[in-house]
Amino acid sequence: MKILIVGAMGTLGTAVRHELEQSHEIITAGRKGADVTVDMSVPDSIIAMYDAVGKVDAVICTAGQAYFGPLEELTPERNEIAVLGKLKGQINLVLLGLDHVNDQGSFTLTTGIIMDSPIVGGISSAMAGGAIKAFVQSAAIEMPRGIRINNVSPNVLEESMDTYGPYFPGFEPIPARRAALAFRKSVEGAQTGQTYTVY
Amino acid sequence: MKILIVGAMGTLGTAVRHELEQSHEIITAGRKGADVTVDMSVPDSIIAMYDAVGKVDAVICTAGQAYFGPLEELTPERNEIAVLGKLKGQINLVLLGLDHVNDQGSFTLTTGIIMDSPIVGGISSAMAGGAIKAFVQSAAIEMPRGIRINNVSPNVLEESMDTYGPYFPGFEPIPARRAALAFRKSVEGAQTGQTYTVY
Ligand SMILES: NC(=O)c1ccc[n+]([C@@H]2O[C@H](COP(=O)([O-])OP(=O)(O)OC[C@H]3O[C@@H](n4cnc5c(N)ncnc54)[C@H](OP(=O)(O)O)[C@@H]3O)[C@@H](O)[C@H]2O)c1
Ligand SMILES: NC(=O)c1ccc[n+]([C@@H]2O[C@H](COP(=O)([O-])OP(=O)(O)OC[C@H]3O[C@@H](n4cnc5c(N)ncnc54)[C@H](OP(=O)(O)O)[C@@H]3O)[C@@H](O)[C@H]2O)c1
Repeated sequence: MKILIVGAMGTLGTAVRHELEQSHEIITAGRKGADVTVDMSVPDSIIAMYDAVGKVDAVICTAGQAYFGPLEELTPERNEIAVLGKLKGQINLVLLGLDHVNDQGSFTLTTGIIMDSPIVGGISSAMAGGAIKAFVQSAAIEMPRGIRINNVSPNVLEESMDTYGPYFPGFEPIPARRAALAFRKSVEGAQTGQTYTVY
Repeated sequence: MKILIVGAMGTLGTAVRHELEQSHEIITAGRKGADVTVDMSVPDSIIAMYDAVGKVDAVICTAGQAYFGPLEELTPERNEIAVLGKLKGQINLVLLGLDHVNDQGSFTLTTGIIMDSPIVGGISSAMAGGAIKAFVQSAAIEMPRGIRINNVSPNVLEESMDTYGPYFPGFEPIPARRAALAFRKSVEGAQTGQTYTVY
């Protein structure tokens, strides 16, 4: 299959890329250093990416920025980072990508454990995750041409413990390659509307 | 208690108002015909509303616009209606309202059954509901001064069957007064972080 991975150079994206590149043709996308340049927070940039890439069998998104910080410092402006990135960015990859995915193809988006098990400082990312989960479940029942859509919700990654560790006391970090398996399940399997929790 | 209800003149808001006005002082808010004028999709309008109203014990939101229509007609622009209204509108009522709610006060937001049980045409509203549910669960663990936050997720309302009925085949409509009870539970009870499903 021809698979487009937005955010492919990131921590999670790298593991997903390694998991899939043995058996598929991968096109990487991101704001820098990838095959195709895209800023998914800008709809016109998404449109240009799809025009450049042509038809694919699967779109994966492992990008998704969000502000981390306490509620009392969460302003509407800071919340906008997650709204533009993790939330609308991922949704617009689907809305604007439908015509660029082959029949029986798939979309796989990324959420995260904090939408189910909240942490201090994680409100904005959790909000975006909750939106994506509900979007996926709803969009699945209306997808044309056998196209499927799922999301993967990883626990905190071992590879990210230096950065995010203090936010996740008592959470059991998982290796990114375990989360990457769920992306393979989504792409190569036949399920749709699912949230694959890798906790 | 002094209770601010945003969207108080709507179908659900009217039932919530009637449920609570016997034992509380109610201030209604909305874009027209209410005690205080507010457009919750505009942060400055929310700030002006709170300045006009002063301190309250509870904020309820029963407003929340969203585009209803099939996936293939859902553009980023149409999705923005729910993002601005039901999603960011409700979240900004909390972020900008924290200092205007008395100790031990509460916020109660509105979601809806389609975030759990999807319908054709409901993607955008479901997405907003999922975001609000996750936001509520996360914000609850960081609320200052004993302030609580919950959301009520009603089934389709009997009062709305003329408008929404065709979207909800086989759903069992509930009277708005049943949903209104869940708002009373949120305001007068002691729970926080909850999603009260009235299905
Ligand atoms: N790391 C964890 O422990 C963990 C756990 C659970 C869930 N998640 C979720 O997994 C996702 C990825 O996390 P991560 O830790 O792998 O992040 P990361 O290392 O920062 O990688 C994100 C990647 O996405 C790209 N990107 C960011 N914003 C973009 C945009 N607007 N348009 C296009 N590309 C963009 C970045 O590259 P450029 O900057 O070059 O664009 C980068 O390659 C996030 O949604 C996160 O919440 C992560
Ligand atoms: N009706 C149902 O069957 C049902 C079922 C489940 C969930 N819900 C949810 O319940 C909520 C209310 O639904 P409803 O049927 O009661 O809607 P509605 O009858 O249209 O009432 C919405 C109220 O909110 C106000 N409003 C709308 N946009 C606003 C804004 N930007 N700023 C301030 N006020 C605004 C409207 O008044 P103005 O136009 O004057 O501002 C109106 O009074 C929605 O989130 C909906 O998804 C409804």
